[in-house]
Order: sequence, then C-alpha cells, then structure tokens
Amino acid sequence: MQIIDGKATSAQIKKEIAEEVEQRLAKGLHRPHLAAILVGHDGGSETYVANKVKACEVCGFKSTLIRLEDSVSQDELLAHVEALNNDPDVDGFIVQLPLPRHIDEQAVIEAIDPAKDVDGFHPVNVGRQSVGLPCFHSATPAGIVELLRRYNIPTRGKNVVIVGRSNIVGKPLAAMLMQKGEQGDATVTVCHSATPDLASVTAKADILVAAMGRPGFITADMVADGATVIDVGTTRVPDASRKSGFRLSGDVDFEAVAPKCTAITPVPGGVGPMTIVSLMLNTLEAARRRD
Amino acid sequence: MQIIDGKATSAQIKKEIAEEVEQRLAKGLHRPHLAAILVGHDGGSETYVANKVKACEVCGFKSTLIRLEDSVSQDELLAHVEALNNDPDVDGFIVQLPLPRHIDEQAVIEAIDPAKDVDGFHPVNVGRQSVGLPCFHSATPAGIVELLRRYNIPTRGKNVVIVGRSNIVGKPLAAMLMQKGEQGDATVTVCHSATPDLASVTAKADILVAAMGRPGFITADMVADGATVIDVGTTRVPDASRKSGFRLSGDVDFEAVAPKCTAITPVPGGVGPMTIVSLMLNTLEAARRRD
Repeated sequence: MQIIDGKATSAQIKKEIAEEVEQRLAKGLHRPHLAAILVGHDGGSETYVANKVKACEVCGFKSTLIRLEDSVSQDELLAHVEALNNDPDVDGFIVQLPLPRHIDEQAVIEAIDPAKDVDGFHPVNVGRQSVGLPCFHSATPAGIVELLRRYNIPTRGKNVVIVGRSNIVGKPLAAMLMQKGEQGDATVTVCHSATPDLASVTAKADILVAAMGRPGFITADMVADGATVIDVGTTRVPDASRKSGFRLSGDVDFEAVAPKCTAITPVPGGVGPMTIVSLMLNTLEAARRRD
Repeated sequence: MQIIDGKATSAQIKKEIAEEVEQRLAKGLHRPHLAAILVGHDGGSETYVANKVKACEVCGFKSTLIRLEDSVSQDELLAHVEALNNDPDVDGFIVQLPLPRHIDEQAVIEAIDPAKDVDGFHPVNVGRQSVGLPCFHSATPAGIVELLRRYNIPTRGKNVVIVGRSNIVGKPLAAMLMQKGEQGDATVTVCHSATPDLASVTAKADILVAAMGRPGFITADMVADGATVIDVGTTRVPDASRKSGFRLSGDVDFEAVAPKCTAITPVPGGVGPMTIVSLMLNTLEAARRRD
C-alpha cells in the first residue's frame, strides 16, 4: 500500500514553479501576481487564504490580499472585482468562498473576467473544461489529476467512481476523467446522496474519489481490494486534544480502508495541498498568457 | 414493452408551443424568430435544417435561412454571426454543424451571443448547465429528459448508463441527469470507446442511453431485462430498397433489444424529433427573455 503524498508532491511542484518564475525574471518577464478577496472572518476561509498567500511566497509570486468585512454590500464587493478585472498588474484573482448569505455568490463568480478566473469557477471556464478546451481547470480536480499522473496511476479504461456531485469537485473531475487522452479515458460514475446501495457501486471502483464532506463515511466494506482511494474530504471535527480544538477529517475511514488499497491519499497532506498548487499553476498560466 | 413515441410527443409539444405563440400575439408580444446558417450542401445537414424550418412553421415562429457556399471564409461566416447577434428581430439562431474543414468550428460557436445560442453549444451555456443554472440546454439531452418526464419514467436513484461522451449528447446529458431535482438525481455512468467490457456496465443500467453513432452496436446481451433504452443514434446506412438509397439506423439492435425492455425509443421517430422540439423550446424561451 502506497501513501500518495500530496504534501511532498505539492512542494516539488512549487519548487518547479519557483524555478520558472526565476527564469521569467531573468528574461525580463513579469512576476506572476495573484490577488485574493476574503470577506469576513470564517476560520476555515482564513486558513485557506493564509495558505494561498504563503504558497505565493514559496512560488515567488506577488500576492495581494483584500480583506472586506462581513457587512460588505454586494455592490461594494462587485466594485472590488471590477477593479481587479481592470488592474493590469494582477494576473489572476480569487474570491474566497463561501460568501455571506446576503451576497449572490454566482453573480460574483460571473463578474470575474474569465481570463483572470484562476479558480476556474466562471461558466466560461466550466464550459470550456467540459468540452475539453484550454481553460483554467477547477483547482481540486486538477490537483487530483496531477497527483494520479505523478504517481503513474493510469486512468485509461479504469472504472472511476466519484462520490459527490459538487460544482467544484465531483462534476468537473468527472468531466476531466472522461475526456479523451492520457489523463482521461476513464469510465466515470458519479454517485451522491440519492444513490441507493452506494457500497455496491463504490466497491467496483478501480479509483474511488470521496468528495461529499462526511467524515469517515467510506468504510472498508465499500472499497475493492487493490483500489486507489482519493479522499477530498476536509471536515473540521472537534478534538479537545488539539490546541486548535479540532482536527481535519477526510471522508474515508483511513485506518480501516488503507490496508486494502494499492494507493491512498491521507487527510491532511493529500488532496488539500494539491488544490493550492493548482491555483498556483493557473496563476502562472495566466501570467504566461499575458506575456 | 412500451414504445416511446418521440414523434407523437414532439407533435404535442409543438402544438403547445403554437398555442403559446398565439397567446403571445394576442397580447401584442412579438412572434419568436429563429435563424439558421447552413454552409454547403451536406445531405444530412440539408435535411436537419429543412426539418427545423418546417418545425418553425408548425410552431408559428418566423424563420430565416441563410445559405452560404462551402467556400465561405471564416471571416465571412463570422460576419454573418455578428450580424445575427446584432439583429434585434432575431431571438435565437444556430449555425448547422459540421462546418467545412477550413473553418474553426469552436471559434464560430464562441462568436455566437450566448443569449441567442439556442443550440446551447457556447461555453457559457455549457458551463451554466453543468452547475445547474438557467441556460439554453443542449437540444438532444433536453429532448431526452423531456421524453422521460412525459412518459413518467423516473430518474431519481436510477442507474443511468450513457454510452458515448460527445460534447452535444453524452457529457451534457450526464450533467443534467446527475443534477439535484425531480428530473435528475440519477447515478450516472459515462462509457465510451476506452471502456473495457462495456456489456458488463450497460447490462446494469436501469436507463441505457446509446449515443455513439455505431449502427446496431447495442445487442440484447448488453441490456438488462426491464431496462428503459434511449437510442440517440441516427446513422445513414445504405439501403437499395429505399428511394433515398439509405435508411436511418439507431445504435441499438431494436428487434432483439425491444422485447427485453420496459420502454424503448425507435429510430426514426424517437429522440430525433425531440431534438428539434428542444430547439423550438429554447427559441421560445429566448423570445420570452426579450419581452
């Protein structure tokens, strides 16, 4: 059984990115610049954004963090988006989700210039990904595909089962893995809360992707011997023994499932770091397009 | 075994559309107007476009057909697209595919104003469909979903297997059927040419959709007893006994498969007429949006 080490892989990719940035600067090209808008003070969002800023430093990117209060109006937020769309110094930017309830998240997503939408959430990027055209890929699915590639885990002709049909993981990952080509060509099944007898479907997966956000939901009986298991779950579970008061829990019962697997991602240290790396790769690509 | 009669269903929907058009006109609202650009003289394309023009008549729509020669340049074609984008009298339009090889099909698709893209091929509509937002749905998948709805064939919790991953059928249909809601909530598997042991996957389908364009490919051993079978194939097969010299063949070996099914669509007279009806519904919706 092999642990798929997303932390080490992401560190390696960030090193590769930093080298390309150095080469860019040596050639007189500009330093990639990622901006992020963070609304409010949600603990999870604070951590995610802090990690993104940190990754920018490691990659040699310029980063800008725009903090707005929970009480910000939709119009004010849209004005910030518009300013970043028009800022020639910014290659790409993200608006950290979720947003406060009084703001129409989709309206904000669609206000972002698709050419700067490094999260890949704008319908233009979602649609281009679906039909297999160049685009900013959604970060988590792209991170998963890159992990499989670097660990030489083929997808062609494999039975891939994705549990969870979210717009940021399940659906775009399905689109990527069914695409023609070396990193696709899988037979893809998407399961979800309305799937009866889920275990009978997951137990047939060569590659099982758990992405529903239910800690420890995937138990050993739901996994085939020799499967590759990708755990996208990162739920904060209360844990009095930790200084933070919580621990991150995946959707897979790791202790019980891991012994059955050919390969498995841990939580933390699996898919999570790869998601941030995908954002860095999209930002680098955005910078290249503007050269 | 029930034959799912797409011809009768589409006739009924066209009647409903014509009634709405009458009501629109009585209220002083404008008559919906669909335009089509047809490049060259491909026999299949000629037939499709002629059927669309005829459907417009039945629905009470205004229609405009713009015929261009095979030799048309991409710039000339794009100029026609731009003119239709800007024509306030046109609610929606299509560019009949395929286009001659010297023309970049995707560039033409992306030049169409998404608000007039009643084929639903523009990435904005593909992306909005994927995330479950209001959009112009791709015509064939929307026609299939409407057929299932009108025949009271539930999709919720059902095992749907789609054979074929095209951008106009397989992928968008998968997105629609996995969506949350009454017409979705299915467990969806997409198979294709790289799927090994295809029969073992298709034989587990409650609803099997054949959309790969290989006449008679789906044989009885590939279908579960009691399945619903949707045949999207429409390949012209040479047939000396016909005046036209060909007959339309579906992807399903109908004679052998039909007796096993709870319900099945014939070819012709199944999905085909519903595809055109979806285009009419999209055009009506485009007209409503401009009221």
